[in-house]
Amino acid sequence: MIQTTSSQGNRPSVGELDLKTLKVRQEEAVLFVEINAPPMNLIGPELVNELVTLIQTAEGDESVQVIVFKSADPDYFISHVDITRVSEYREPAIKLTGEASLGLLFRYLSTSRLTTIVQIEGRVRGAGSEFALACDMRFAARETAVVGQPEAGFGLLPGAGGIQHLTRLMGRGRALEIILSGEDYSADLAERYGWINRALPAAELEDFVSSLAHRIARFPAAARTLIKDRVNATALAPAADFRSDSDLFLETGRNAETQRRVQNSMKRGFQTRDWELELARRLPELGS
Amino acid sequence: MIQTTSSQGNRPSVGELDLKTLKVRQEEAVLFVEINAPPMNLIGPELVNELVTLIQTAEGDESVQVIVFKSADPDYFISHVDITRVSEYREPAIKLTGEASLGLLFRYLSTSRLTTIVQIEGRVRGAGSEFALACDMRFAARETAVVGQPEAGFGLLPGAGGIQHLTRLMGRGRALEIILSGEDYSADLAERYGWINRALPAAELEDFVSSLAHRIARFPAAARTLIKDRVNATALAPAADFRSDSDLFLETGRNAETQRRVQNSMKRGFQTRDWELELARRLPELGS
Amino acid sequence: MIQTTSSQGNRPSVGELDLKTLKVRQEEAVLFVEINAPPMNLIGPELVNELVTLIQTAEGDESVQVIVFKSADPDYFISHVDITRVSEYREPAIKLTGEASLGLLFRYLSTSRLTTIVQIEGRVRGAGSEFALACDMRFAARETAVVGQPEAGFGLLPGAGGIQHLTRLMGRGRALEIILSGEDYSADLAERYGWINRALPAAELEDFVSSLAHRIARFPAAARTLIKDRVNATALAPAADFRSDSDLFLETGRNAETQRRVQNSMKRGFQTRDWELELARRLPELGS
Repeated sequence: MIQTTSSQGNRPSVGELDLKTLKVRQEEAVLFVEINAPPMNLIGPELVNELVTLIQTAEGDESVQVIVFKSADPDYFISHVDITRVSEYREPAIKLTGEASLGLLFRYLSTSRLTTIVQIEGRVRGAGSEFALACDMRFAARETAVVGQPEAGFGLLPGAGGIQHLTRLMGRGRALEIILSGEDYSADLAERYGWINRALPAAELEDFVSSLAHRIARFPAAARTLIKDRVNATALAPAADFRSDSDLFLETGRNAETQRRVQNSMKRGFQTRDWELELARRLPELGS
Repeated sequence: MIQTTSSQGNRPSVGELDLKTLKVRQEEAVLFVEINAPPMNLIGPELVNELVTLIQTAEGDESVQVIVFKSADPDYFISHVDITRVSEYREPAIKLTGEASLGLLFRYLSTSRLTTIVQIEGRVRGAGSEFALACDMRFAARETAVVGQPEAGFGLLPGAGGIQHLTRLMGRGRALEIILSGEDYSADLAERYGWINRALPAAELEDFVSSLAHRIARFPAAARTLIKDRVNATALAPAADFRSDSDLFLETGRNAETQRRVQNSMKRGFQTRDWELELARRLPELGS
Repeated sequence: MIQTTSSQGNRPSVGELDLKTLKVRQEEAVLFVEINAPPMNLIGPELVNELVTLIQTAEGDESVQVIVFKSADPDYFISHVDITRVSEYREPAIKLTGEASLGLLFRYLSTSRLTTIVQIEGRVRGAGSEFALACDMRFAARETAVVGQPEAGFGLLPGAGGIQHLTRLMGRGRALEIILSGEDYSADLAERYGWINRALPAAELEDFVSSLAHRIARFPAAARTLIKDRVNATALAPAADFRSDSDLFLETGRNAETQRRVQNSMKRGFQTRDWELELARRLPELGS
């Protein structure tokens, strides 16, 4: 059943990839990618770099039609960006888009010929949520998934496309609630708001997603690409909007008040597994 | 209670129509139209031709304010287009819009002064779903309604407005899921995604729709037309987008892989009642 | 806990306001505003005038970050505009926007640096719903809240932004249903349609909203303003659209049929507490 494609001319195939933060397994035309960047799946330079390599390779490997992203960590799908390495993790995006911006990298993925599905278990916040929003579909475990955009709690603005996607998915009122409150949302509430496609029982999630991925991969590739193009033409924000948000994220990051809150948070335990389990509850304390 | 209007000058009234595939009954200012094109309410030239006649006549008959569409077939509201007669069923649209395109015909209906409501029982797929999406409101029987856009399974792209409407109703993630998966959706799930306005118990559906139709018909016509214009100004895709999708449907239809899958499906039972009961489940087999 | 700010230079603080129709109480950076315009919170010149004063003062008072709007009347959050005083209640909007239009006043509030939350108990219809839609978030009591846009029943078009907001929040089908039917919607159904953010048990609503308001107020102001700007850039209709709807409201108000229905309604009890409890049920009778 498992097919590892051999090299196609000069192009490497996904089977030849040797990655540290992404565990890759191909089953027919579906690539299952497990995010595995201990201790808590922070988005740092290595993860972004390998994500770029994966996307480039998979796009060039015609044996791949659909990618499923999940996490090797049951508590964190992706925690968020490594706030101590902002300029470093932005850099590898240049290879794909010509610009050092996570938002534009994610937007590139939204326009890819590949169909992308995220299978969310555990927490996914900040740029992790923005990565999920850039993928084509999002399914989450009812019992364990938690999504959030905590940026406002630090005085930051979500800079990697979250504002663009959330506003278009659910409209002004709910997008403002999510982004201004920085709250954690359960899978059920995230479904009601349209943040994710569906919340499913954790025990059924993997089979559901895998079966959907294989189903889609069996349909003709040409029409799937056209369909994505046509949906994107209406629903995907222009690159200029991603660029503006990306710039504003850096700009708000330079505010004295933001820097004070980030430092406060680092002292207390930000970017450590246990402390962030209840990140949303801790946000209002960061100002004091 | 039943009012059959007499002829108004040179214009025929709906009461004078003699149609084969549409059973028409007027009750005050509400026209109840039952789609009745055995064996399975396929969209073919006769149905489209009579739909054009009905729309033209009803628009010119001031005694009609609201149209309710339902089906005479409990299993199929509309199955989809008759794939063997694509150029024929497109032709009659010219009379209303000047263009041989189902999508533009449906878009014409979206801009009509008439308020249109669909009452869905049974399956409605492909261009049937696109017809329902072009109407102003959609209510479906919780126990029996099934909606789907199976085009991708054949290598086709939904060409009669489905992409435009679904993307605007529910955003990128759910629209991509529906269109790329070609899956069947229950009334409840279709409600959660915003595909239909509401799922209602089958036993209550007819009364609910009839009562809503009469309520709306009693309100002043001028404001209702303005309201539709203002909502359409924001939510109805430009004709150019319908035209592009219509062209892409024809284009994808000429692909060798699409033709192979269509032929495969015809051999197995496509366009027959029983086989299509489980159409969504059969789609992935068409490639082999 | 309660902080009444003192005057800042020449600018008045909200603590110095003496208003009749709005009861104002400040708690840290959150302003709780109770709408109190007996007998039924109709939008008349005094309420609009005081709302303008409140917004201007609160915007100029840096101690205020978030406003929560609720009602002193358990049955009516806001009933609707006082239809007998249309030109009078539009006038005070000029002070803020330069134009005598409720829709543009509400839109101004949508772009304010202040975060605004409505806590809905009881009925909110017509321009009351449009005021709620202009605020940043809407939470409603599951047991008591009722929302509606009854304008179509009189031959009017919602003129203060309702069409713009509803269409963008929920798409064409549900927006048309709500506006063309003029029906009352329960909090639960309004949540399913996206009209409100969430329906909550009445017993929990006040604590939930207060806690959310204080949470948001503790986050840095600069980022919150940017976030609103970015969300509005996509989701808030242009002023021109509000202006058009505002003009069409006046235009439809001059129709003979509209005037006849308004007079009919006034004779029967429109703009009185008891009669309007079941306003939606009474709308279809106004034509006879």
